[in-house]
Amino acid sequence: MNDIQLYDATLRDGMGGGGMTLTAAEKLRVVRALDDLGVHMIEAGFPASNPKEQELFELLAGEHLAVAQIVAFGMTRRRETAAEDDEGLRVLAECFASVCTLVGKASVLHVEKVVRVSREENLAMIADSVAFLVGAGKRVLLDAEHFFDGFCLDAGYSLDCLRAAADAGAERVVLCDTNGGSLPPQIRTAFAVVAEALPGVALGIHTHDDSGCAVANTLVAVESGATQVQGTINGIGERTGNANLVTIIADLQLKMGVELLELERLARLTDTAHFVDELLNRSPNPTQPYVGKHAFAHKAGLHAAGVRAASETFEHIDPAVVGNGRDVLISELSGKGTIVEKATQAGISADEEFAERVLARVKDLEHEGFQFEAADGSFELLMRKEAGGYQPLFRLESWRVIVEQRADGKVETEAVVKIWVEGERYVRTAEGNGPVNALDEALRAAIGELYPHLHDIELVNFKVRILDERKGTGAITRVLIDATDGQDVWGSIGVSENLIAASWDALVDSLEYGMQPGAQERPPRDAGEPSAGTRGRV
Amino acid sequence: MNDIQLYDATLRDGMGGGGMTLTAAEKLRVVRALDDLGVHMIEAGFPASNPKEQELFELLAGEHLAVAQIVAFGMTRRRETAAEDDEGLRVLAECFASVCTLVGKASVLHVEKVVRVSREENLAMIADSVAFLVGAGKRVLLDAEHFFDGFCLDAGYSLDCLRAAADAGAERVVLCDTNGGSLPPQIRTAFAVVAEALPGVALGIHTHDDSGCAVANTLVAVESGATQVQGTINGIGERTGNANLVTIIADLQLKMGVELLELERLARLTDTAHFVDELLNRSPNPTQPYVGKHAFAHKAGLHAAGVRAASETFEHIDPAVVGNGRDVLISELSGKGTIVEKATQAGISADEEFAERVLARVKDLEHEGFQFEAADGSFELLMRKEAGGYQPLFRLESWRVIVEQRADGKVETEAVVKIWVEGERYVRTAEGNGPVNALDEALRAAIGELYPHLHDIELVNFKVRILDERKGTGAITRVLIDATDGQDVWGSIGVSENLIAASWDALVDSLEYGMQPGAQERPPRDAGEPSAGTRGRV
Repeated sequence: MNDIQLYDATLRDGMGGGGMTLTAAEKLRVVRALDDLGVHMIEAGFPASNPKEQELFELLAGEHLAVAQIVAFGMTRRRETAAEDDEGLRVLAECFASVCTLVGKASVLHVEKVVRVSREENLAMIADSVAFLVGAGKRVLLDAEHFFDGFCLDAGYSLDCLRAAADAGAERVVLCDTNGGSLPPQIRTAFAVVAEALPGVALGIHTHDDSGCAVANTLVAVESGATQVQGTINGIGERTGNANLVTIIADLQLKMGVELLELERLARLTDTAHFVDELLNRSPNPTQPYVGKHAFAHKAGLHAAGVRAASETFEHIDPAVVGNGRDVLISELSGKGTIVEKATQAGISADEEFAERVLARVKDLEHEGFQFEAADGSFELLMRKEAGGYQPLFRLESWRVIVEQRADGKVETEAVVKIWVEGERYVRTAEGNGPVNALDEALRAAIGELYPHLHDIELVNFKVRILDERKGTGAITRVLIDATDGQDVWGSIGVSENLIAASWDALVDSLEYGMQPGAQERPPRDAGEPSAGTRGRV
Repeated sequence: MNDIQLYDATLRDGMGGGGMTLTAAEKLRVVRALDDLGVHMIEAGFPASNPKEQELFELLAGEHLAVAQIVAFGMTRRRETAAEDDEGLRVLAECFASVCTLVGKASVLHVEKVVRVSREENLAMIADSVAFLVGAGKRVLLDAEHFFDGFCLDAGYSLDCLRAAADAGAERVVLCDTNGGSLPPQIRTAFAVVAEALPGVALGIHTHDDSGCAVANTLVAVESGATQVQGTINGIGERTGNANLVTIIADLQLKMGVELLELERLARLTDTAHFVDELLNRSPNPTQPYVGKHAFAHKAGLHAAGVRAASETFEHIDPAVVGNGRDVLISELSGKGTIVEKATQAGISADEEFAERVLARVKDLEHEGFQFEAADGSFELLMRKEAGGYQPLFRLESWRVIVEQRADGKVETEAVVKIWVEGERYVRTAEGNGPVNALDEALRAAIGELYPHLHDIELVNFKVRILDERKGTGAITRVLIDATDGQDVWGSIGVSENLIAASWDALVDSLEYGMQPGAQERPPRDAGEPSAGTRGRV
């Protein structure tokens, strides 16, 4: 089975998941990452008149993509309206994208109860809309909404919907399990009937995970003749999510013999998956098939040597093929090579002995609750300190934070830092809207004049986790801060029994990293590269 | 298809997942919850000589279960050892459980490369071990490890392994996809061959999710003749996890017509799933099929009235059947009935108008960043305040926290609270290992003598989330605190720009809730009931 088309719906259907939002610029970065991965079609959304979508389509119109086609998404015409008078269809016809996907109802239940038009009018809505866009020079796909549920109720009518689209010139009809309730046997049966009823019509599959079978339903559709698979990166989407395109890609290529992606593209799968999570401000799911941090983690009893001897005994694939590792944690023995690599990238000369020392230090710190996967800045500083000769920005004398709710109900926060730089003592006070903000302001007040580049560094993310949660407010606190200077993004970490002390440590690391000699001269990471998003992996 | 046996492996295989630990007492609570749900067999682990496992088996021996059988889990005998001389087998033979599951190799690759014995010796290890336990009066199951991978390499030998167990008296052989790499077609093919080669032998299925198909693989096995399904609650387990028994139960009963559970048991599915997550200190996955918070959440455009008119148009099942709801968020219009119910439970007289006022207040607060799902304590206080006549524990004048890293490197934290109780002013100072801990100590120092029950209240969990994370340390902070008085557990919430102010608000709510009149007299929630674990749902 070859020539399977990958169709990504992350930017449209995926955004239906709770709390999912991306700016137009972020969506562009996702598009570039998907293009690098080798996805064939990218559904960008409806090129509507609202400014955000307009901005995205303007950005995309100027973008050169190596592999991917941008797809504009819209609905069939409104009832009792000529297609050419339908505003939505006209927007699609006029947009730059050469491929349009239209969603149309393919279930008698929805035609009667939701759209409330006659069966004939629904067929006309599909046919007219497809024909109009084909006439406007577009390649048109029909997303046949609720197809499988409709097929159970009235298979003939659902088939008529597909036929209406195909006869009107659609290049493909996509069978959608919109409510996600189908199981593989239903998918298989429906595809067999469709293939016989509409010979020669190209088919696609679009599933949701409400029965926990979205991936399997997609695979069975491919076995049954589908030549396009729709899904989202990491399976994001409404309710239980869409089919996970990341898993599907790996299953098709590594298990079902489909020649989908060149090997160097397939090796970007893990980075791409993590990059999208990072942009969406989600923690990557460690148990996600193929790309999760734990996907190739093994029991303590199995040692590295044994693993190498016969990895096929307990690994279903070689993790490197999808860009994952047997253990992506820096603390593993297998990570020594990674450390030498990371050190070299940072301009630190490193040998085996250096890597061992760094690993020993990392292990000690991880035992205290540190975790460097999401703190590449702190990890690089750790290496620099271990390499010797590291010059910190300042020497700390003391800091103090006071947070007070006054009798009038007002909350006030004030921080004082006392530091030394080149023999001189700086004492600065600042207010803030919280204790960390106040410390940040005070520290910048002290050293901002000496280091003007500090003004370019902005804290963009602040996360607190409590370790050993069952101990309540007496537990150990881990603070992660992400900072940026507008072109690079880095993470830093602080761990302490005291929330404020942990925040201070992470804050200092984030500024130290951004200010180290050479930090400004390093080649900027291209924000469009998937690797830029996986800033947490060291 | 009926008479499918549910076999839960949460307490054994599930514990292989990262960070999964339960005490013996917690495991007992899981066993009770699984029994209440109607699971037929519960794998409790190896009744080893270490104190923790010993304690669990002692607890279980004294437990009366309505439905479930406790299963002891162990390995086939060591090589070149008589079964009766094998220590592990003797422990199994002597334990109280009448059912034992033995894991044995069923792949030539593992026999040769991992166990490193002859093919014949491996067969003898299986046969001898089964026969020994059958002779000791046990019902014996064989978990045929790596069966599907072995079947691809040398199907005949893998079948021999099954046959060795069946001939020796095993009541069932369970085909295991130990590395999780199989897809449904392989499962189907292997089952067809096994059913023909070993007619009359009862079969089970045990899968892992490394290809994202664990649930579908289990379902296809049932279609192909498996009469026992093994899995874990919420799919916890090593790497990408085991098959999710929660999804499988719902799929089998609601989609495949298997009569598994009485309807009142099936309605416990959501509570049971959340209860296990709570015990494991995991946030329930909101996108989990059937039981996730978002599993039946719908787009804004679809209104409650439309939903009721034709819920089958966009819901694959009725969420109530599995104990879930269309929207478990308190902010929805559909939640008015829930609020009247919750108020009545708390002894507050409530009518429609009251529910409307509470909902309006909740909506305002949610807009500010509050979220009451995990803060049932704060929600009950909100209702009491809305009902009128609420008496707070104290009137706040002011509080102040100072956190300081001194010149000698030592971090010190000190809090002062000034409050009024019944016309008297209390000023108290306390130190702590962090700002929230210090505030907690100072507040207790002030009012602890007046309210001796305060001593029983302990903070057990403290979580911080940053809302609108992209704004860094200037963002809004949401603090959740869980507290307990030893029999009840409740959640409270605070939201503020200032981390410490948010923590203070959550802290006060947690103490206020625990101290309200009647809190001590309310019937204790039975810790063994699944519903006790879903403390966050209001």
